[in-house]
Amino acid sequence: MSRDLVELAKRRGYFFQSARAYGGVSGFYTYGPEGATLKQNVEDAWRERFGVREGHREIDAPTVMPEAVFEASGHLDTFDDMLVECPECGESHRADHLIEDATDIEEAESYPIEEVEELIREHDLRCPTCDAELAGEPVEDFNLMFETNIGPGSSSPGYLRPETAQGIFVEFPQLAEYARNQLPFGITQIGKAYRNEISPRNSLIRTREFTQAEVEHFIDPTEDEPPLERVEDVELTLYPADEQGGEDGESGEYVETTVGEAVAEGLVHEWVAYYLGVGKQWYESIGVDMDRFRFRQHLAGELAHYAADCWDAEGEIDGDWYELAGFAYRSDYDLSKHDEYSDDDFTVFKQYDEPKVVERATVDPDMSYLGPEFGGKAGDIADTLETLAERERSAFEGEEVTVEVGGEEYTIPTEKTGFSVEEVKETGEHLMPHVVEPSIGIDRAVYTVLVHSYEVDEVEGETRTRLALEPEVAPTFVGVFPLMDKDGMGELAREITADLRAEGLDVSYDDSGNIGRRYRRQDEVGTPFCVTVDYDSLDDDTVTLRERDSTEQVRVPVEDLPDLLGDLRTGETTFADLEAAAPEQ
Amino acid sequence: MSRDLVELAKRRGYFFQSARAYGGVSGFYTYGPEGATLKQNVEDAWRERFGVREGHREIDAPTVMPEAVFEASGHLDTFDDMLVECPECGESHRADHLIEDATDIEEAESYPIEEVEELIREHDLRCPTCDAELAGEPVEDFNLMFETNIGPGSSSPGYLRPETAQGIFVEFPQLAEYARNQLPFGITQIGKAYRNEISPRNSLIRTREFTQAEVEHFIDPTEDEPPLERVEDVELTLYPADEQGGEDGESGEYVETTVGEAVAEGLVHEWVAYYLGVGKQWYESIGVDMDRFRFRQHLAGELAHYAADCWDAEGEIDGDWYELAGFAYRSDYDLSKHDEYSDDDFTVFKQYDEPKVVERATVDPDMSYLGPEFGGKAGDIADTLETLAERERSAFEGEEVTVEVGGEEYTIPTEKTGFSVEEVKETGEHLMPHVVEPSIGIDRAVYTVLVHSYEVDEVEGETRTRLALEPEVAPTFVGVFPLMDKDGMGELAREITADLRAEGLDVSYDDSGNIGRRYRRQDEVGTPFCVTVDYDSLDDDTVTLRERDSTEQVRVPVEDLPDLLGDLRTGETTFADLEAAAPEQ
Repeated sequence: MSRDLVELAKRRGYFFQSARAYGGVSGFYTYGPEGATLKQNVEDAWRERFGVREGHREIDAPTVMPEAVFEASGHLDTFDDMLVECPECGESHRADHLIEDATDIEEAESYPIEEVEELIREHDLRCPTCDAELAGEPVEDFNLMFETNIGPGSSSPGYLRPETAQGIFVEFPQLAEYARNQLPFGITQIGKAYRNEISPRNSLIRTREFTQAEVEHFIDPTEDEPPLERVEDVELTLYPADEQGGEDGESGEYVETTVGEAVAEGLVHEWVAYYLGVGKQWYESIGVDMDRFRFRQHLAGELAHYAADCWDAEGEIDGDWYELAGFAYRSDYDLSKHDEYSDDDFTVFKQYDEPKVVERATVDPDMSYLGPEFGGKAGDIADTLETLAERERSAFEGEEVTVEVGGEEYTIPTEKTGFSVEEVKETGEHLMPHVVEPSIGIDRAVYTVLVHSYEVDEVEGETRTRLALEPEVAPTFVGVFPLMDKDGMGELAREITADLRAEGLDVSYDDSGNIGRRYRRQDEVGTPFCVTVDYDSLDDDTVTLRERDSTEQVRVPVEDLPDLLGDLRTGETTFADLEAAAPEQ
Repeated sequence: MSRDLVELAKRRGYFFQSARAYGGVSGFYTYGPEGATLKQNVEDAWRERFGVREGHREIDAPTVMPEAVFEASGHLDTFDDMLVECPECGESHRADHLIEDATDIEEAESYPIEEVEELIREHDLRCPTCDAELAGEPVEDFNLMFETNIGPGSSSPGYLRPETAQGIFVEFPQLAEYARNQLPFGITQIGKAYRNEISPRNSLIRTREFTQAEVEHFIDPTEDEPPLERVEDVELTLYPADEQGGEDGESGEYVETTVGEAVAEGLVHEWVAYYLGVGKQWYESIGVDMDRFRFRQHLAGELAHYAADCWDAEGEIDGDWYELAGFAYRSDYDLSKHDEYSDDDFTVFKQYDEPKVVERATVDPDMSYLGPEFGGKAGDIADTLETLAERERSAFEGEEVTVEVGGEEYTIPTEKTGFSVEEVKETGEHLMPHVVEPSIGIDRAVYTVLVHSYEVDEVEGETRTRLALEPEVAPTFVGVFPLMDKDGMGELAREITADLRAEGLDVSYDDSGNIGRRYRRQDEVGTPFCVTVDYDSLDDDTVTLRERDSTEQVRVPVEDLPDLLGDLRTGETTFADLEAAAPEQ
């Protein structure tokens, strides 16, 4: 079924593989006019729901970033997939996918390399391209970042960002200043990200270039709470970790619950649960089928060591479940990494309501003793004493203090350390925010919406194909047809087209072929409404308004069209309302 | 002056150099919250003016493209800048820029390499970094595309697109099908493009990653004419090629004219002139100062060999002129290249109104003669005869025909070629469209708008800095302040904030510091209007509405705010109208 959709997508200008004139490039797609507009409508809906309504602000950072960023983030070391190369044809394959395709194992990517090599041997896996034996071939980690060079020469490696998130994290010092150091605050970004997939597949699901929409919500973990009341009644279909991965390969039970209950029962971290609620509302609003949508908790092996909780939004396509988004509580992992690797400060200064008086232990080592006694080591020893005073005051209780510097122990008389405890007034403290991250794949959302909208039914004895797109996201909102382009019907239809465009509606004017064929064309494009100008229109200034899904028609005055269609788009009016109000025909 | 702007831009969240925590990366900028919104408003205005109003459709193609595309487009061979490396410090410099900085020469990039090396010697140019002599150092062509590899290994090189245009050209066969082969049609694209500049400079003007907005308008050059009447009265400041580059380094005269006159006088190609008119309207609408804006015609050396005419839009910053956009008539160059390099067809089939009867010359060579006579060459000779019949019918008028195959001549009796002329009916012809391309740099537009909006004046005896941004593009449209957050003023101000946001307006709520300081902050951000809730507001439900530029204030009812501010944004109402209508205070 999704194959039919892909064929329709190409024919109707939704999307197609790029550069087909040169044989196509695996993993790269071009959105045609309908697809680009659908994608933009989905992005606008995301901005409205995750940005404006949440009070978050958007930034726009480069897609090419320097190596230092990915050293800190860990992508340089660990952003790998398992590659196995066919010894016969030279084709590269993802080892974990070969195993998943041949066995009941669901998340082979969480297995260690040795085990993956063993599984290939055990199941006698073969090259999908040429059927050569893969047993015994080495499985290697392949880094998924696209690499390039910044400026002439190769001294400044750069990488296409594998996620938009790092563009936010790395600018945290500037962003915190902009937010006047007040937590919580949220920063969003929507833009291209890249993964040099070993074997791209499943159309828009696993591409090498894609559009990601991320929120990084920076919070004070000791104080800030999500505004759960806004989404507490939103219903969730949850697939918790302990229900997954039964030995018999069978799926476990889903938990049908609400955001409020899921938090109350400790099933989902409160901040993650908040965004599951927002996410569920958003996916439903753009037209993902809620009967083919769930939230799946990460298994222990999938969960990053720093993440307290992570759930994926998943959509079902052709009987398989695909990740559409990740909702993670990332603690202070990202900021602390950049704090450690860079010279900048990735904390906020949190002012106390009232200054606090605190005891602080300090040292003031007698260098005229340390110098002669320890020579070149004296400076390091003094530094170590200072750290020790901050961390372990009790070490200074005896006559002597012992510290380790460069693997050797040194003993210093306590009186020579100048140890003292003072009372100091502090006006606030440096705090490293925690991060909650809803991370959404826009292309996967667009693709799922298209697949879930694809319908085949029968109209007047003929099979018809239609995209049952939501009016809010449909790239073409209304088709306007003159019965024929003569006797003034064409003029009137073109006038209507101009008026509706001036209202900001996407209109397709079409005067070619018979009306039935024009309706079918718009049904395939997913246009929710069509307006037909006929001979009666010239007399009484009314036109036929036809709804795509029901194929029902009502007669409405031309002058009402702009307001009426505007209301149909926002959902303020439904077609059923119009039918109820219309005189019997 | 632009230096002050750059400082303000950083402080107020407009833009700043990326990854400063790691020392920054030359040529890469991050837009903060205000800048990202300003940029998006500029992009939306572009979409409205160059897309929707022109009836063009937008597509969204990948930024990473395969090598074959750039072999065809010519970028692999010729998309170079002249690089000279310092023998002492190793720094790379653009040789043409060094020359322009040191001499009166304006477009050194159009000079041949030998001449550039000679100019470096002649003027004894030195390394700007370490002052070492550059005379005698080789000047080399450096390709400006960022290179990477698609998939594992290095067998599939890919490049970050140097312009969005190729993503449109390469998909022309699909796009023509979508347009049902009807010329003219326009396709737009807006997105990231990349140039690996040798020495990025001038803030957002010359960056390595930037956003480009292009229209490719495909036309039938024999028939299609631009709708000049829509823009014929638009006034243009033109700087024609023959006024430029006087030997004394002085600028020539500008020609002040209109689109209509420029075409009538043959000064500008009609299609290019049409888009100069659209471009002028657009730059003016987003707030570029028209006294610091001109269209400069390309010099003979700059003009691509295939381009019939090309004009750049230029903006003045700190006394220098910078390219903001190019408006080119590209003929069929791009499509014919892809037609030649790929297996696909880059023409449209243009149906005749009535089928035409045409004479067609064909051959039907007698292979039983050619075979024994010419052996292995017979096939090639037959093919050559066919081509010859199509191109030069007169060659078959004598007793014998001579053709050249593989450098050798072969003579064949005409009667053995089966030459004949037949009448055939043709229903149409294949036509390769010409392309008109307005290509706009979004970052440069944003930067110019900011620089041209930067004003310093005096208010109540104090110096104030403000960005006089147009209401249509200002990222924050209105600031809402309670006099103090007490006695219900905070609540009312927050209610107003929520109501205005629901109207789709960008609102900044601020209750910190005294009112004067809050006004200054919004003046610097460029917020056109501020609303202040005071004690009177609690009694009579009115608030103070203050205009940024004049600092004038009027009192308006709270309930009128959403409509009134909406009208101020679109320009339906002006602040002067409100002042005229307000009761004397």
